Amino acid sequence: MTVSARLADFVAASRWEDIPAPARHEAKRALLSYFGTALGGSRDIATQHLLQVLSRFSGPAEAGIIGHQLRLDMLSAAFLNAAASNVFDFDDTHDPTIIHPTAPVAPVLFALAEHRPVAGRELLHAFVLGVEIECRLGNAVSPEHYARGWHITSTCGAFGAAIAAGKLLGLVPRQLVWALGSASSQASGLVETLGTMAKSVGVGGAARGGLFAALLAQQGLAGPDEPIAGPRGFAHVTAASPDFARLTNGLGESWEILANMIKPYPCGVVLNAVIDAAMVLRQRLGGKLADIAQLEVVAHPLLRQRTDRPAPLSGREAQVSAHHAVAATLLHGLPGVDQFGDAWVGREDVIALRAKVYLVDDAAMPVGAVRLSAQTTDGRLFRVEIAEARGSRSHPLSDAEIEQKLRRLCQHGCPGLDPAPLIDAVWSLDEQADAGVLMRLARP
Amino acid sequence: MTVSARLADFVAASRWEDIPAPARHEAKRALLSYFGTALGGSRDIATQHLLQVLSRFSGPAEAGIIGHQLRLDMLSAAFLNAAASNVFDFDDTHDPTIIHPTAPVAPVLFALAEHRPVAGRELLHAFVLGVEIECRLGNAVSPEHYARGWHITSTCGAFGAAIAAGKLLGLVPRQLVWALGSASSQASGLVETLGTMAKSVGVGGAARGGLFAALLAQQGLAGPDEPIAGPRGFAHVTAASPDFARLTNGLGESWEILANMIKPYPCGVVLNAVIDAAMVLRQRLGGKLADIAQLEVVAHPLLRQRTDRPAPLSGREAQVSAHHAVAATLLHGLPGVDQFGDAWVGREDVIALRAKVYLVDDAAMPVGAVRLSAQTTDGRLFRVEIAEARGSRSHPLSDAEIEQKLRRLCQHGCPGLDPAPLIDAVWSLDEQADAGVLMRLARP
Repeated sequence: MTVSARLADFVAASRWEDIPAPARHEAKRALLSYFGTALGGSRDIATQHLLQVLSRFSGPAEAGIIGHQLRLDMLSAAFLNAAASNVFDFDDTHDPTIIHPTAPVAPVLFALAEHRPVAGRELLHAFVLGVEIECRLGNAVSPEHYARGWHITSTCGAFGAAIAAGKLLGLVPRQLVWALGSASSQASGLVETLGTMAKSVGVGGAARGGLFAALLAQQGLAGPDEPIAGPRGFAHVTAASPDFARLTNGLGESWEILANMIKPYPCGVVLNAVIDAAMVLRQRLGGKLADIAQLEVVAHPLLRQRTDRPAPLSGREAQVSAHHAVAATLLHGLPGVDQFGDAWVGREDVIALRAKVYLVDDAAMPVGAVRLSAQTTDGRLFRVEIAEARGSRSHPLSDAEIEQKLRRLCQHGCPGLDPAPLIDAVWSLDEQADAGVLMRLARP
Repeated sequence: MTVSARLADFVAASRWEDIPAPARHEAKRALLSYFGTALGGSRDIATQHLLQVLSRFSGPAEAGIIGHQLRLDMLSAAFLNAAASNVFDFDDTHDPTIIHPTAPVAPVLFALAEHRPVAGRELLHAFVLGVEIECRLGNAVSPEHYARGWHITSTCGAFGAAIAAGKLLGLVPRQLVWALGSASSQASGLVETLGTMAKSVGVGGAARGGLFAALLAQQGLAGPDEPIAGPRGFAHVTAASPDFARLTNGLGESWEILANMIKPYPCGVVLNAVIDAAMVLRQRLGGKLADIAQLEVVAHPLLRQRTDRPAPLSGREAQVSAHHAVAATLLHGLPGVDQFGDAWVGREDVIALRAKVYLVDDAAMPVGAVRLSAQTTDGRLFRVEIAEARGSRSHPLSDAEIEQKLRRLCQHGCPGLDPAPLIDAVWSLDEQADAGVLMRLARP
């Protein structure tokens, strides 16, 4: 039996009852984060450009765009919501692969749910399965796939979207393999595009391509028997030595969604501990930032290698600048999308404070830990140590913090919308008769 | 200056006057072949599945589908015409890379030409440039790219389509680099899908993706500075040691369209000489096929390795079966799409004649040459030798033969259409004020 057929059989046979409660709950947390980041990104310039072009070619207005009144055809809506939810890289992250698992998968399901009634648990079930295959595929081709230059969210996302859509459409195993085949014909996305708007073309394309693949399979469009593990299939072509055991071992026993992390801050995850430390320091300093003479960040050399950017010139660069992270957090408190945007990067007070930050290596410290010290002009020393950042798997955001994240992102991208009913509807999604309700609640 | 910027500058600065007459003529030959194969493939089952799904999501009916009354939005029309024109693998082939160069590029230009008036020479010019960048990119990543498993027509096709559309849209160099960036986010297509309908998803996606990329760039959607030659750009990610000199050396001096070949037969090109030989043999035998005892095909071992399939079970397999090629040609004469279709594969007379064919290696013979011998039941021997097949670069089809190919394909896929006005219009394309006329002539 081929690897692709085993995955298809598992997905087709899976029942809602098979999904354990922790996985169901984690799925809701991911969806809450999804609506938050999609609302937050709904007015971003990349989102707007994509919306302009896609709406010009859209078919029937059957599926909503989160944070907009506008409705587009399912394929275009899936594209746009995927792109918007990932545009700030503030969406959830699958720890072992750094896939953003929800962006390509969730929009496909909600587009289908607006087209015909889908029960909340049907959608949640398909979502968990889509994420499962997407992330297992990521496991199988990691770490070489990303290291070589593949934007793993976009590439593996197309397969996750195809599986999720296929499950919701009730495809039989043979059709699910075909869907994987047509997904393999579209899987794309390069690391080279990260930090530019073209990244969003890959992420949107993963959602659209996956949905298209499932619809084609439903129509009868056949593909190869082994699109994933065949000699010229996706895995071998994009990674020299894929590990197929990681795709198929323990299917239905372990759940990849449980390895999902919700980001607390809209920047590179390596900066999470830095910001945690700056939050504590800010409280200790009681707002007396003018007294600061210098700010020392001590960490494993990896932090310096990735984030030593004393003078970022754009929001994109600031998102991987430890100097900016410290300065913006001290000045503002809990940093949001604005604090990692172009305007904040150019503020005089930010620039002045950033100039006082420097990084020091300590190879003896564990990766992820940070020691932040502030020395004041009158010689006092404040020191904060963070052993493990918020948002990591062992230190996850609370449900309330994810709600808070959604509210703040909604305020940023779609201030006209009251997010409270949407938040409630996500938590009760498994009881909803019509999952499409959530899209109406995400419409201003 | 980056590689991507050099390509963009070249394309933006190029004038119609810069295109030498032989390249212009070769472009028309390619377009004639394009309309032929698209007409021939217009009713194929894969085309029909794609059409069913895409028309359900199509926006404004602004661009035609070759061989159909139906009109769809530009993106969907570009997808469908690309897929249909390549569905039989009977379209033109760029010799050094085996890219089918026209399928992803031409449909994009004709879709644009139906949307706003485009002069024939404008279209031809953009077509030559799109093919140029597409094939040079293919040269730069060959042979590793295809050997690794990338369907080079689909992957490089997206860039060619983006450049061609960008030229027609009048994009400035910076925008052309952006278009290459968004093309890089969509470039996909696997060799594993060849021989299945999922192949067409890749080829259609290349045309659609390239057009989408150019429209996004026009809208202002930015991308990386070096989507092609950057460290995580397309070339390095899909080939370990790309040769960028092959992308940029001699731009404007040599023209890749001159390395284009028009296929005489709807099967693997390695069988061209076999069919040439069988055509001659058929004439010599004067139709007395019942007398044949055995048919010996002598060639370089490469032919046997690729085409030793005594009993193919499907049209797809027959397309790479020397036994079928000999039998079908002897029985029918000049073989068309039908003779390599499922029905012919199962015919009793074909099966009987196929059983008499066997292959013999002769390592001393040049690759591409064939010696075909028929021995009759009464002991006579007929021998035909072909040194170089029709359709090769040194033995190209004549213009009249390409016209004939179009007529036969039209008869196969769209018998209600009179192809004569279309043929005339392609030959006079550089004099046409409105290139969109051709699409109306390709409509039944």
